[in-house]
Amino acid sequence: VDLHLDLGGGGGGRRAALERALRDAVRSGRLAAGARLPSTRVLAAELGLARGTVSAAYDQLVAEGYLSARGGSGTVVASRSQPAAPAPALVRPAAAPRYDLRPGSPDVTTFPVAAWLRATRRALAAAPASAYDYGDPRGRVELRTALADYLGRTRGVLASPERVVVTSGYVQALGLLATVLGGTFAMEDPCLGLHREVVRRGGAGIAPLPVDRAGARTDLLAGALAGVTAAVLTPAHQFPIGVTLAPARRRAATDWARAGGGLVVEDDYDGEFRYDRQPVGALQGMAPDQVVYAGSASKTLGPGLRLGWLVLPERLVGPVLDAKRHSDLHTGTIDQLALAELVAGHGYDRHLRACRQRYRRRRDRLVGTLAAVTGIAAGLHALVGLPDAVSEARVRDAAAGHGLAVGALGDYWHAAQAGHPGGLVVGFGTPAEGSYPAALDRLGAVLHGVAERGASRRG
Amino acid sequence: VDLHLDLGGGGGGRRAALERALRDAVRSGRLAAGARLPSTRVLAAELGLARGTVSAAYDQLVAEGYLSARGGSGTVVASRSQPAAPAPALVRPAAAPRYDLRPGSPDVTTFPVAAWLRATRRALAAAPASAYDYGDPRGRVELRTALADYLGRTRGVLASPERVVVTSGYVQALGLLATVLGGTFAMEDPCLGLHREVVRRGGAGIAPLPVDRAGARTDLLAGALAGVTAAVLTPAHQFPIGVTLAPARRRAATDWARAGGGLVVEDDYDGEFRYDRQPVGALQGMAPDQVVYAGSASKTLGPGLRLGWLVLPERLVGPVLDAKRHSDLHTGTIDQLALAELVAGHGYDRHLRACRQRYRRRRDRLVGTLAAVTGIAAGLHALVGLPDAVSEARVRDAAAGHGLAVGALGDYWHAAQAGHPGGLVVGFGTPAEGSYPAALDRLGAVLHGVAERGASRRG
Repeated sequence: VDLHLDLGGGGGGRRAALERALRDAVRSGRLAAGARLPSTRVLAAELGLARGTVSAAYDQLVAEGYLSARGGSGTVVASRSQPAAPAPALVRPAAAPRYDLRPGSPDVTTFPVAAWLRATRRALAAAPASAYDYGDPRGRVELRTALADYLGRTRGVLASPERVVVTSGYVQALGLLATVLGGTFAMEDPCLGLHREVVRRGGAGIAPLPVDRAGARTDLLAGALAGVTAAVLTPAHQFPIGVTLAPARRRAATDWARAGGGLVVEDDYDGEFRYDRQPVGALQGMAPDQVVYAGSASKTLGPGLRLGWLVLPERLVGPVLDAKRHSDLHTGTIDQLALAELVAGHGYDRHLRACRQRYRRRRDRLVGTLAAVTGIAAGLHALVGLPDAVSEARVRDAAAGHGLAVGALGDYWHAAQAGHPGGLVVGFGTPAEGSYPAALDRLGAVLHGVAERGASRRG
Repeated sequence: VDLHLDLGGGGGGRRAALERALRDAVRSGRLAAGARLPSTRVLAAELGLARGTVSAAYDQLVAEGYLSARGGSGTVVASRSQPAAPAPALVRPAAAPRYDLRPGSPDVTTFPVAAWLRATRRALAAAPASAYDYGDPRGRVELRTALADYLGRTRGVLASPERVVVTSGYVQALGLLATVLGGTFAMEDPCLGLHREVVRRGGAGIAPLPVDRAGARTDLLAGALAGVTAAVLTPAHQFPIGVTLAPARRRAATDWARAGGGLVVEDDYDGEFRYDRQPVGALQGMAPDQVVYAGSASKTLGPGLRLGWLVLPERLVGPVLDAKRHSDLHTGTIDQLALAELVAGHGYDRHLRACRQRYRRRRDRLVGTLAAVTGIAAGLHALVGLPDAVSEARVRDAAAGHGLAVGALGDYWHAAQAGHPGGLVVGFGTPAEGSYPAALDRLGAVLHGVAERGASRRG
């Protein structure tokens, strides 16, 4: 056997080089399974190495399983499977639309990199070494304390740090609640399909909770929907319709929960961005023993952080922590410490104030450019009505022809159904500052165009 | 009604101050449910505010649900539940032992804070804004690329970035695999009970896989344990016994998997720390289509990071990503980018080299101080044999009397059973540098003491 071993390069000494060369030869198939290797004496002489070096390399590769030692009969190449071909890329980014007005993401170009780095540096300077060890499944006390204060101050949430659980975003939080509560969750119809699937996989069933102009039909919870374990609501700004839950509906939800009906899960995903007055306080503040408050940094800083939080009624803290612990022990420490520093030092408030002004300008431009815009009191998206007798699909097709991507209500219903109203769900957070006016103008032209064609067809 | 409203302090203008004062009054119970508020005209005159200010504040608190507007009959305090009492602390840290020799954690005082901050700064300077948006459920491509190279170089893992999935630590990784594979997992007996519970909650059953001096009895997989969907192994350094999986047993595992028996999950939790020669290469390198490689930063940097990774056979990439997406979408971005920078810039190798030297010195001292120490070829813990006819409980009681905490094999068996051998599981990573020699001396004295007493009792 001529091994053709290349011992050059790679560093780590001659034994390491020999091991590497042998591994490569086995992996590439040049040394086939069953092939007998030269004795250590022969190979050492061939390569000009000490016999002990070759012997040590053989031992190592036997330990790693590349070679087999056959006692008196020498060393042979072990049989093994071929190297795996690379897996095909599963996430193929679709060709990005020229103008993206789909909802869901905030403007991540505003992520405060410098402030985040400063907060991280300060936080790690102050953190004990135990911050890098296994920690409390609730999350870092620094962040839970900062959040309890912040949420009380800005959202009217009644929180103590002991009742706050830091999660890896809202998706994990919702999954944990489904795992813990089971039964059936009433979920707004329309709502995000991903959230329904997360609840299902957590082990709970789904009952659709209709939404009208006053928000989710919480009045049905004590009636047609009696028996559900939880109702997941977006009271500050319904996703995707955009309405604010009316006071009577807020009351109906907490009354139902207080009467022993079940738990309210308040998904406060964009409650920080309210434009017409101060943010509407969280429902949780009205009934902290019946409402789970769920918030996150996904709309305020960026979803890439995967940082969320639950404020829980006391009886749920233990079960949720048990589920969290068996899910991922706890959420990563360093981002938690950085966010705690940012919140406690009010850098978070400053960032939100700047974002709110930016988003408000964008919302105002949306309202000024298009007709029939609703759901504009808060958040990063609004609902745009369709011209008479024009389908969502037709508008989206026409929009795509102009390089525009928009959302539509049809993406969010629990089940397709004839009576559902149509509408475009327009996210105004993400387009680049320079292209946003053009995007709105184009959308306006598209809507005008399909309306004209519709009218001429009817006329 | 005299409201006793304190409008001082807090900032945000007079309306904000009035709203805050009203909220406080309702929350504290000073304004009871059903109480009628003064008209806006009367309260405005009392407080010296414009009537519009009072009216706006009432509107806001109606929207938040603290007050109810009763049309012609004025504004009343809405009924609501009492503020929740703080939940009791659920994680009560037990009084820390003076000398902690329990296994599980690395020496987190070595966490390279300065290098981590540098890596974070560099990574965020280079990252596109999209890094802060929703991302690929696999994790950042920068980290997957760096890991594929690193694992190939140091652990003999055959990885391409497309087959790497970044997880929130090993616990999440194991749970995802149990969810995807189902069936029954063969798990080493003894092993960590938390891992068994994570597999169970993921939806798979557990079959005990005995461990002897050659490591896990993988020879049983094709026999007594036929039918299991996966075998979870710690080939580099069995936890907690400390043996390295023998070449024949490595072969038995991959042969079983290759013959269609099932999947091998290789938990390489401390494979980087090998003392007697180069690290034994990963089993995955022998059969990349049959072995899932699982690694993490928990022992190399710190478990607080909650960063782990799987290298998957191609057929499992899609199902695992689907489970990951519904678990938490993806792992947080910033730590991933920082770790990628640290690995690609070889700061990770430098840190590991320093840690390896430190841990080797500690291991050498352990071997030099105590008798009957095994499982010392790798990792951060070793097994210490018990004197004849002395139980683990007796040694632990005696040790506790000297301020010493140690692990024992009895913590890790699937089920209590008479035939199980006893032994102490001694973690040598965590004690402070200054107290480690004293801790070992005390443990030696304890073992000597219980042996003496045992002998005199028998004599």
